[in-house]
Formats: sequence, structure tokens, C-alpha cells
Amino acid sequence: MSRPDGRALDALRPVEMTPGFHRMAEGSVLYRAGSTVVLCTASIDEKVPPFLEGKGKGWITAEYQMHPRSNPDRRESRDGRGKAPSGRTQEIQRLIGRALRAAVDLDQLGERTIAIDCDVLEADGGTRTAGITGGFVALAIALDKLHKRGTLTKRVLREAVAATSVGWLDGDLRLDLMYKEDSRAEVDLNVVATGSGGIVEIQGTAEGSPLARADVIRMMDVGLAGVATLAKIQETELAKVGVELRSLLMEKS
Amino acid sequence: MSRPDGRALDALRPVEMTPGFHRMAEGSVLYRAGSTVVLCTASIDEKVPPFLEGKGKGWITAEYQMHPRSNPDRRESRDGRGKAPSGRTQEIQRLIGRALRAAVDLDQLGERTIAIDCDVLEADGGTRTAGITGGFVALAIALDKLHKRGTLTKRVLREAVAATSVGWLDGDLRLDLMYKEDSRAEVDLNVVATGSGGIVEIQGTAEGSPLARADVIRMMDVGLAGVATLAKIQETELAKVGVELRSLLMEKS
Amino acid sequence: MSRPDGRALDALRPVEMTPGFHRMAEGSVLYRAGSTVVLCTASIDEKVPPFLEGKGKGWITAEYQMHPRSNPDRRESRDGRGKAPSGRTQEIQRLIGRALRAAVDLDQLGERTIAIDCDVLEADGGTRTAGITGGFVALAIALDKLHKRGTLTKRVLREAVAATSVGWLDGDLRLDLMYKEDSRAEVDLNVVATGSGGIVEIQGTAEGSPLARADVIRMMDVGLAGVATLAKIQETELAKVGVELRSLLMEKS
Amino acid sequence: MSRPDGRALDALRPVEMTPGFHRMAEGSVLYRAGSTVVLCTASIDEKVPPFLEGKGKGWITAEYQMHPRSNPDRRESRDGRGKAPSGRTQEIQRLIGRALRAAVDLDQLGERTIAIDCDVLEADGGTRTAGITGGFVALAIALDKLHKRGTLTKRVLREAVAATSVGWLDGDLRLDLMYKEDSRAEVDLNVVATGSGGIVEIQGTAEGSPLARADVIRMMDVGLAGVATLAKIQETELAKVGVELRSLLMEKS
Amino acid sequence: MSRPDGRALDALRPVEMTPGFHRMAEGSVLYRAGSTVVLCTASIDEKVPPFLEGKGKGWITAEYQMHPRSNPDRRESRDGRGKAPSGRTQEIQRLIGRALRAAVDLDQLGERTIAIDCDVLEADGGTRTAGITGGFVALAIALDKLHKRGTLTKRVLREAVAATSVGWLDGDLRLDLMYKEDSRAEVDLNVVATGSGGIVEIQGTAEGSPLARADVIRMMDVGLAGVATLAKIQETELAKVGVELRSLLMEKS
Amino acid sequence: MSRPDGRALDALRPVEMTPGFHRMAEGSVLYRAGSTVVLCTASIDEKVPPFLEGKGKGWITAEYQMHPRSNPDRRESRDGRGKAPSGRTQEIQRLIGRALRAAVDLDQLGERTIAIDCDVLEADGGTRTAGITGGFVALAIALDKLHKRGTLTKRVLREAVAATSVGWLDGDLRLDLMYKEDSRAEVDLNVVATGSGGIVEIQGTAEGSPLARADVIRMMDVGLAGVATLAKIQETELAKVGVELRSLLMEKS
Repeated sequence: MSRPDGRALDALRPVEMTPGFHRMAEGSVLYRAGSTVVLCTASIDEKVPPFLEGKGKGWITAEYQMHPRSNPDRRESRDGRGKAPSGRTQEIQRLIGRALRAAVDLDQLGERTIAIDCDVLEADGGTRTAGITGGFVALAIALDKLHKRGTLTKRVLREAVAATSVGWLDGDLRLDLMYKEDSRAEVDLNVVATGSGGIVEIQGTAEGSPLARADVIRMMDVGLAGVATLAKIQETELAKVGVELRSLLMEKS
Repeated sequence: MSRPDGRALDALRPVEMTPGFHRMAEGSVLYRAGSTVVLCTASIDEKVPPFLEGKGKGWITAEYQMHPRSNPDRRESRDGRGKAPSGRTQEIQRLIGRALRAAVDLDQLGERTIAIDCDVLEADGGTRTAGITGGFVALAIALDKLHKRGTLTKRVLREAVAATSVGWLDGDLRLDLMYKEDSRAEVDLNVVATGSGGIVEIQGTAEGSPLARADVIRMMDVGLAGVATLAKIQETELAKVGVELRSLLMEKS
Repeated sequence: MSRPDGRALDALRPVEMTPGFHRMAEGSVLYRAGSTVVLCTASIDEKVPPFLEGKGKGWITAEYQMHPRSNPDRRESRDGRGKAPSGRTQEIQRLIGRALRAAVDLDQLGERTIAIDCDVLEADGGTRTAGITGGFVALAIALDKLHKRGTLTKRVLREAVAATSVGWLDGDLRLDLMYKEDSRAEVDLNVVATGSGGIVEIQGTAEGSPLARADVIRMMDVGLAGVATLAKIQETELAKVGVELRSLLMEKS
Repeated sequence: MSRPDGRALDALRPVEMTPGFHRMAEGSVLYRAGSTVVLCTASIDEKVPPFLEGKGKGWITAEYQMHPRSNPDRRESRDGRGKAPSGRTQEIQRLIGRALRAAVDLDQLGERTIAIDCDVLEADGGTRTAGITGGFVALAIALDKLHKRGTLTKRVLREAVAATSVGWLDGDLRLDLMYKEDSRAEVDLNVVATGSGGIVEIQGTAEGSPLARADVIRMMDVGLAGVATLAKIQETELAKVGVELRSLLMEKS
Repeated sequence: MSRPDGRALDALRPVEMTPGFHRMAEGSVLYRAGSTVVLCTASIDEKVPPFLEGKGKGWITAEYQMHPRSNPDRRESRDGRGKAPSGRTQEIQRLIGRALRAAVDLDQLGERTIAIDCDVLEADGGTRTAGITGGFVALAIALDKLHKRGTLTKRVLREAVAATSVGWLDGDLRLDLMYKEDSRAEVDLNVVATGSGGIVEIQGTAEGSPLARADVIRMMDVGLAGVATLAKIQETELAKVGVELRSLLMEKS
Repeated sequence: MSRPDGRALDALRPVEMTPGFHRMAEGSVLYRAGSTVVLCTASIDEKVPPFLEGKGKGWITAEYQMHPRSNPDRRESRDGRGKAPSGRTQEIQRLIGRALRAAVDLDQLGERTIAIDCDVLEADGGTRTAGITGGFVALAIALDKLHKRGTLTKRVLREAVAATSVGWLDGDLRLDLMYKEDSRAEVDLNVVATGSGGIVEIQGTAEGSPLARADVIRMMDVGLAGVATLAKIQETELAKVGVELRSLLMEKS
């Protein structure tokens, strides 16, 4: 069955990035995947949260917010405005934070925090995985800036991290679901992984019938292939603004 | 390396249930897995949330709460009291709700809501999976009551659902982590599945190094074996209070 | 006129206790009075609230919560969840705290706090008085533990404290109202007292016609008799788990 | 032992009232008892809360607030501003509401609500009892206005209601405690009653040693005498602004 | 066209003040302008907010609240009770704070805060300008007290500050709008100024058609004349309670 | 004295606009004035707030939010997240809403709401005036879309509205203050006006010494000249995306 935008079942949406879009933040990217648009910024703060003070470690945290008009109908108000962020928002920003912490050796980062803000300006499915993939680019630019300033001398980046989703719809596995597909998919699996296929986080839910073990594995494999492609795009985009990903990576131990 | 309570690496903790512990609720169980104690109740409400009104479908929802003294140190206050429940709490109750909705054909349930309340009285790791496994037992007792009252004539239960966790610690895969293990585990995978091995939800996080594809599969398999054991225990415990699980299950289509 | 459960007008409901029900807390009891079920725990914290720091005194505080399904109809949500506890909840936990502080010589307790958590699992009237009577049992077990550990050497308990209610319904004084009676009673008096008849707190409200002075006295006397009976039951239940109430009591000065 | 302001042990503080102080409200009084100043207003709303709609009954409700500078030190902010009113505030406004509802036959009031706002402008002890005594005056003026407007034809007032406190301090019973006494009193009993001695509400707490039955009765009697005096003052003050209390009272049945 | 109360277009409403109405506060005034009644208190706190600590400067802050019955219909609840104060309330209290800070040389005040509480007891338009004009009187009385106590030796008051509004209605400029006029006015300009015509704050909004430059100037001039009159009334009222305004003013530099 | 960016005292910062930046919203612009960057969107909702229902009128409302990294130091959290928006935020969004409502004849708009969201991505002073000037552009694009869709047949736009600030610093009047100037300015005046010089809103505050009448007039005139320039830029930018401002304007009556 053909997809709404005519893509192959295992194809990602076209990705466009504008690294450095936000000039104040140490790192940033305006990330577009199809009609999903997320502004990711990475901000460096030379201190850590109370639970880490004095331990010589760094921290990475994430905030996620939907623009009121990120959907076809405007929300009455921003999620979390005047009240606690919804469970969904909190779940997503916890996920983005965990994913990006896995990309960095926090012991080597020093007592500083990198805060990743993911503002979903327009949403057409896949905003949490866009937040991770774009968030990594913003993070890498910020780390590069720390190195160039001489603030950071040791390398702290383990490997590039990216994310995508795989769904099961009308009998087909589909990579990188857009909203029209996502809303109808019976199964949805998010894969967060490194460029070389190391799995950082995997989350799958079968809202309809349970899924066979073999199908989970197949979905995981399609997702890993998508992540590998995204990791190459990340590297190319970083290079365009003078950030050599390899020069940021730690030596493999 | 031996485990704190001397169990085998692939062994579950001893499970004890007191079905019907709470007399007011349509279904309930006091669920103990080792030192983790969760009171699960299932309450039937003959109406549905606004977004489902008039659609002829039913709904299952879950609330989760830690007792202030569920940990060795008492919390100053209950999570969510006077403020929004934490991100962790919301994530867990969303997970329990999804897991138990997967066990039921909501289209056949009629316009009614079953609310599952999971009160963690004592916590020693695995409270969210205990909430699912115990929550299913409470749910089954409540459905049995609906059948016996004649309120529900069609069967709505697809299959038993249970959950457990698998972790990677000190070089070993371990099933059903207790707190001492969980707090040190580098990788943690929750598996929610049916007794026959259908996967309902899978969530894994590698907080340290990423995980190889093969290791994810191995962890999934250990988890599925644990769930199969739990499903048998559920059936036995239900039988003790006169609930025949098979008589509640829908015909396979 | 006969009572819904056939009791005499001046009879208490049957009381059942499971002391030590909660294993993590220093003291605990699962308290049943008829169909009312309250889990009371006493948790020791080796510090005091800011307003008492450095004064060498101890503190006792209480939290009270209704389980969402403690009533025939489940509440949409726990009271106080995501918002401030209701006025009723706050009034009750302030009452329980005051009542139990009156049982202890705080000057002798040392700079520690004992927090009493009263979770109403099932409610059929009299939950606040159950919280006090059960809360005292949890408190005594916790104090006994402090003595046995050698943390506390001086005795701090003045006397056992228990509570019950007396109502005026259909022309009769009735002791220990259950919900069906309480909801129709014109007058309701709560009596918190010591086993020997010392009055700790008295609260009476005439929602219909005002009450004559003589009737207030009569109600107080019926309540005091009920408290005397409850104090004996407390002593017996404590003895069953090896807590000798007399050995905890201070010498009368 | 002499009292801070030289009063006899069984004497009330001087009471001054300015009925009609607030011109917009249907009824109002600026109430002074010694240095305690409370502005009480009674506002009529021609509808009832949702739980009473369509039952043909009326309702009386109360709000209580401390002015930020009602104490020698200004509070950082008004209680309840930007957060829920404190437990103490809620307890007091529930008490004032109950006390004034007892003064009125709500079945005869018609489907309207009378809201009593008690603003404590200056506090020197006894603010809750001042709220009741002054609140009754505001209520009576508002009812008189309803009669004179012809909106209300049947009489609805049962009897005047007033309140005072009795404390035990330095071995003496003292009536109508001011702050310096109240803060040191071992026992505090609030008596809400009618002019003829009918008890509406009684609340006593022994924070130190429990109280003997005989002492409770003695305190109650001193309080009832105080209330009788206050009821006469209420009648006199109402008469000054042309409100004849007797003409508002229902025939005794 | 004539005004609802028969005033001339450029006349203020009659102003009545009761300085010292609140006895606990260092400074206070009950301020009436026509049917608008505001209780203003000035409270001195011998410390400053965190952002000013250690800078040797003082601070002036304001809180504003409407009494629930300050309008013909009682509000269900006080603004800001149990939730954040409305945008309007916050805007007004920020305005009052700025206006009164402009009256004082904060560098000379010493590390203390003066908090101005404006409680609108009855509202008939012009409550924010009443808060400023009355707030200044309360402030001056409090400063006088500091001088007389010897706590403050240097003079800190620059000049008297007062405020009024000017509106455009039915083709006429009108000074000091009452509610009936204010609610229909197409343009509304608030002028906060010193007695000698120095402009402290000016805020004008044309809700209907935009306003010509010349009209803005005309409105400003009418407002300044009103402020000059109010400044004289302030001086007279202060003198009545023994506060000589001139003796508080700094030498002009 | 020269300005930080070398501009003339009466010169605006360079303005750059990307109309249509946000593709989902009916109207949008990415607005840059120097280093201040605001994303303005206009969203149409075919209904009105409750207070306008059934009156045949339309409504325009605004929300304003600072991106956490809109300042050199990242804020711990977005203003208003999990709590009420600050007083400053509410004041600004009320101002933007009023300013844009003045641009439109709401009686002709029909029962629909246009919501303007102003997201400050980077802040270097003048964010509220940028929100108005950019907000107008987004609004005009959205109205043009309504006309082209045929949803709106009558013209509703009265005139272009823009805003800028004027400050007094180091003895000079300066137009369009950037942050470095704004933070030190003694006086700050915001002027919201139409292209032809009609004043919509004027707000000036003298934080230091009061301002002479003549100086207020001078500041107003410099601000009006700035607004006239901005109005021309708005027209040019709208033309670039095919929106002819003149064709949207109502006939002058």
C-alpha cells in the first residue's frame, strides 16, 4: 500500500537542517523532517543540579514543548502553561535527556550542564525522535564550541545518537511514520541508537494485538537502518558549519 | 555472581497474592513479589471519558501511587499531593493503562470504564511490573463479577497479561530485579506480554554503553519466560477465588 | 430503633487489627472497625521540622488520605492529587496529629519526628476516629522499636489515646456511627480521650437544632465509655505482637 | 493572676461594632473586640451551589482571610494567594459557615445563597469567634433588607448565634482569650451557641494534659455565659441601625 | 453632557481619608473617592528581597486585592485565591509599586522594605489610582514614624505622588472616571505624577479609534491638574494626624 | 554619545522579516530587529470566547513566551511552565492583544478568533514592540488568506499598527532601545500607533526622576516617527508574499 507522501516503506522523510539557526545558544539547529519542524538548542551552564554537586560529573537535560499552533488546530494554550506539563510531555523530555546522556561520557564533561530545548514548531509525527536527532546536532555544535574556546580539553562524545520510529500499518512495516500513519498504526516502536547500531533505547507498544517476537526483531532492524542513515546526515550537516564529528569522538577503549 | 536473595539469575521472586483483599472494589488483589507490596483494585464505572462518549466502546485507565513509607526513608509527602504527579508516576500509570487495555477487547466491553488503582505499599523494585501483573488479576475478578451479575454477556478478555523486568548487572542477565540490583543495573528492559508470548510493550534503556542487537533479543527472551511463569501463577490464584480464567477468554478469531 | 448492623445503641463495631501489617514502617496496623479499613503506619525520621530545630523537642505529624475506591463509587481522582488536599482532609490530619501529640511527652522524645500515615482503604464512617485509634497502635509499636534498639532510653508515652463518635439520630444517642447513620445524624460529637477518661479533644456540631447543655454532657459520657473499651482493645492487640503498653508509659508525676 | 488588659477572668473584651460599614454588601459590620478587627459582609446571590439546585433550599457559606498586616509582622503574602488556603483557614471558614447555617432555616430561605466574608484586618486572638459573632450581625442586616425589599416574606431566622472562647491558663479559666493568653493556653474551647444557651458547636483541645470531664463542663458554662452577653450586644447594635432582631425570628414551633 | 454624579467634566470626586485607620501597620489610610473605598497600609520590614541584599538600598513593593464584594455582584472567590492573581491584578500592583518607588530615594532608605497593601473594599472605578494616592499617604505616615523613632535619620522622600485617570466619553474629556463612565469610555489615560507636575507614569489606551497627538496632550494636562489637587489634599490630611509633609522631603539637589 | 551598534539616536535597528516562516499557521512571520528574534503566528479559530458568544463579533487574543535561551543565560525553566505566567508576561500579552484588536473592526470580523502567538526566540530588548509589529504582519497574512478563501468578504482592517520604544539615557533621547541601553535607561516610553500617526497605546515610566511634560511630548514624537517607518516596512514585506495591504483596509468612514 502506498504511503501518503509516496515514500518507500523503508524510506525516511527528507531531512533539512539549519545548524546555528539560534545565535545565542552555544549549539542549535532548525530541524525539518517532512512537515515536522523542531528548533533544538543546546545551552551550557557551568554548574550541575544539586544531586550532582561536588561529584566532578556533568549533566545533560532536556525540555520539550509544542508550539500552540504546531497542530492543524491551535491548542487553547501551551501544554504546561499555568499547570504541570502533561504526562506525554514529561515522558518525551525524559526520553530525550536519557538518549543524549548516553552519547556523552558525563564523567569527563566536568561540572557543567548542557540543557537541550526542543521546541516543536510544526508537528507531523515523529517529534520525539526529531528532538533526539536534532538535539544531538545542537549538542555536538555546543561541545565543539567548548573545545574551541579551550574550556573543554578532553573529548567527551562517545558516538552520534539518532532516533526514528517504525510502525505496523495495514500489514506493512513502515519507517519514520508521519502523523496520518502514526495515528492509525497498530504498533509503534521507537529506536534510539548510535550510528554503528548500538541500541540506546527501545520502546514499543502494541495497542491492538500483541506482537510476535520475530516481528519485534524485524521492526528493530528496520529502525536501526534508519538510524544509520540519520547518523550520516548528522555528520554531513555538522561538517557544513565546520564541526568535524570525528574530532569530537573519544577514542574507543 | 550471586543475587542478594540467593535466587538463580533467571528466577522470579516468590509471588504471594490475596485476591479480594479490598472488599468494596469489584476486583482487587494484594500482590507481593518479594518485599514489593502493591494493592491493586479494579473499579467499574458505568460511563466512559468524554472523548469516548457515544461510541459504544469501553475504557480502562490506571492510577499509580507510592505510599509515603514505601521506601526505607519516608518521603516528606506523597508524590502528586498538592502538585502534579511526577513524570515518573505519570509514565508508569500510562504504561499500566496501555498494558491492561491490550488485554481487553474494548469494543465489546460496552460504555463503561474500569479504573485500576495501584497503591505501592512497600517498594523493593519492580513496582510497575507488579502493578501490571496484579492489575490484571484485579481486572479479571471484576470482569468475572460483571459476567456473574449478568451485566456483561459477551466475553471481552483476549489473554492474560503480565510483566517483568530484565537487567544487565556485573556481566549477567538477571530476571526480576530487586531494588539493590535495579539501582546498579546498566541496562533495564521491561517486558509486558501475554501468557502465550505475544509482546504488548517492550521498553529498554541502556544508561551506560549501548547494547548490541543480540543482547536485546536475549533479554527479551528471558523476560518472556518470566511472563509465562507469572501468567500461570495468575491463573492459579484466580482459580482459588473461583474465577476460571478460561471462561473469561474470548474465542480466538 | 434498631441499628443497620443490629448493634446496641451504646455498642462499638467489632474491631480487628493486624499490627505489623506494613513491614517497612517502624510501626503499623491494618485497622478494621466494621467495614471501615485504615492502614496506619508510623515512620521515624531522626530530624524535626524547621520550626523546632535546635530546641531538643520531638514532633508527631499525620497525613490522611482516602483511597479512590474507599467509597461505593470511585472518585475520579485521589483527594489532593494535583491540587491541595481538601479542607476536610486537612482538618482531619490536623486533628489526628494533635490527638497523638497529646499522647507523648514531646520534650522527652528527642529531636525526631514520628509521621503517622492513615490511608483509608475502605470507608464506612468513623475514618478519622479510626485513624486516631489505629494511629496510636502504630505509634506505640514504633516507640517500642526505638526502646528495643536503644535509641530511646527515657519513656515518652503518657497514656493510650483512642477516639470514637457519638451521634443523635431518630431520637436516640448512638455510639460509633457507621456511614448510613452518620449521613443522617442531626448531631455528631467526636471524643478523643485517654483510657482513664482524660479528654484530649472534643468536637461537636449540631447541624439541625441546637443542643441542650445536658445532652452534650450525655453524649460526652457515652463517648468516654467507648474510648475506654477501645483502649483495652489497643492494649490487647499490642500485647499480641510483644508490645507491653505499660512498659512504654511514663511514671505519673 | 491578672490578665494583660486587666479584665476579670470571666469578662469579655469591649466590643465595638459599626454596622453598615461596607455600603455595597446587603449586610455588613466592622467588628472590634479589643484589638481584633474583622470586617464581616453578607452578600446575597439569587442562586445556590450546584449540589442544591432545584431543591428549593437556600445556602449560607463563609470565606475567611487574614490581611497581610493583621499580625505584628507582615506576612510575605496573603494566605491562599497563588496557592490553596491553609488548613487553618479552611477549618475556620467551614466552622463559620456551619455556625451561621445553624441560625437559619435553610428550607425557608428559598433558592438563594448568602455569602459571609470575614476579613481579619487586625488580629489579637479570637478571630474565628469574632467572625461568627460579627457574621451573624451582617447576616441579620441582609435578611432584614430582603424582608424590606419584599423578596423574602417568611421569617427564616431561628435565633441569634454568637461565639467565644474559654481557655485554661496558669490555673485559671479565662473567657475570650487575647493573643498573649491564647498562645500560652494549655486548653482552648470554642463555644458557638444561641442567645438562649442552645449549643451549636463546641470544640476543645487540650494540647498539654488531658482535661477532666468536670473541667470541660465548667469551661462550657463560662463560654455559654459569654455568648449570652454577646447576643445582647448583637441585638442592641442591630437596633441602632433599625434592625429589630425579634421581627426577624421565626415563631418557635 | 452631564456626569452621573453631576460633577463638572474636570472635577475630581470628593475624597475622604481616615489616616491611621489600621492601628497595627506603621502607616495606613482608609481612602474614599466617591464610592470607591481602598484600605492602604504601609508595613516596614527591616530586610530587603534577595536581589537587593547587601547593596545598602531599600525597596518598596505593593499588593493589591479586590474584596469579593467590592462589586455589585459578589465574585465567587477572591482573585488569586487558590490560583495565581490575574494579569490585571499583577499589572496593577506592579504599577503601584513603581509609582511609590519613584517617590522615594531608595539609596537613602537603608536595607528595609516598605510593603504597601491596597485592599479595595468597594470599587466604583479608579481603584488603581486610589491605591497610588492613598498608598502615598500610608507611606508618608510610615516614614514619619521611622523618623520619630529615630530609625531613619536622613530624609528619603522626593515629592508627593498621586494619580488619577482621564477618559474620553461621548465627545468629552472627563477627569476621574467612575465605573459607569469608565466602562463606556473609548479612551482611558492614567497619569501618575508629583504635586509639581513631574510625570512618573503615563498609560493610555484607545480601545476604539486611535487618538490624535493633540488629544493625548490635552488629556495629560487635565490629568496633571487633577494630580495637583490630590497632592494638596494629601498634604492636608497628613497634617491632620501630625505628619508635616515638608519635613519629610529631601532638599532639592 | 554613540550607541552600542553605532546607530543614530533616532534610527531603528535593521528589521528583517520572513513572512510565512511557519507553514501551518494561517499567518506568520519570523521577525528580526537587530538581535531580537520573534516568531509571530496568527491562527484562526472559527469560534469566540464564551463572553462573546452569540454577539456576532470576532476577537483577537495574544500569547507571549520567552524561549528558555532567549537570554545570554538560560532560564531554569520557561516562564509560566508548571505555574502561572509572570506578571510581566501577562502584561505584555494583554498589551499585544489590545494593540492588534485596535487594528481590526471586530464587529465585521464575524464570530471567529484570531490568536497571535509571539515566541521570543532571542531577546535583545524591544520584544513586546516586536511582538506587536510582527504580530500585525502575521495578522494581515491571515486576514488575506480568509479573503482569498472567500470566508471573509467584508474588509475588517482599519490601519496598520506598529510599535517601538523611546528611552532617555545619558542625556539623550534614543529610539528603539537594545538591551544594553534599555537596562540603563531612566525613562522608557512605548508607543503603539498606526502608520498615519494615530495613537493606540502609550506607556511611559520614569524610574528615576519624574519627567517634564515637554519631554514626554518629545519622546512621543520620536516614537511616532519610528512607527511610521515600521509601517512602511510592514507594507513592503507583505507585498513580497503577495499580500497587498491596501486591499485589506476598510474604506475610511
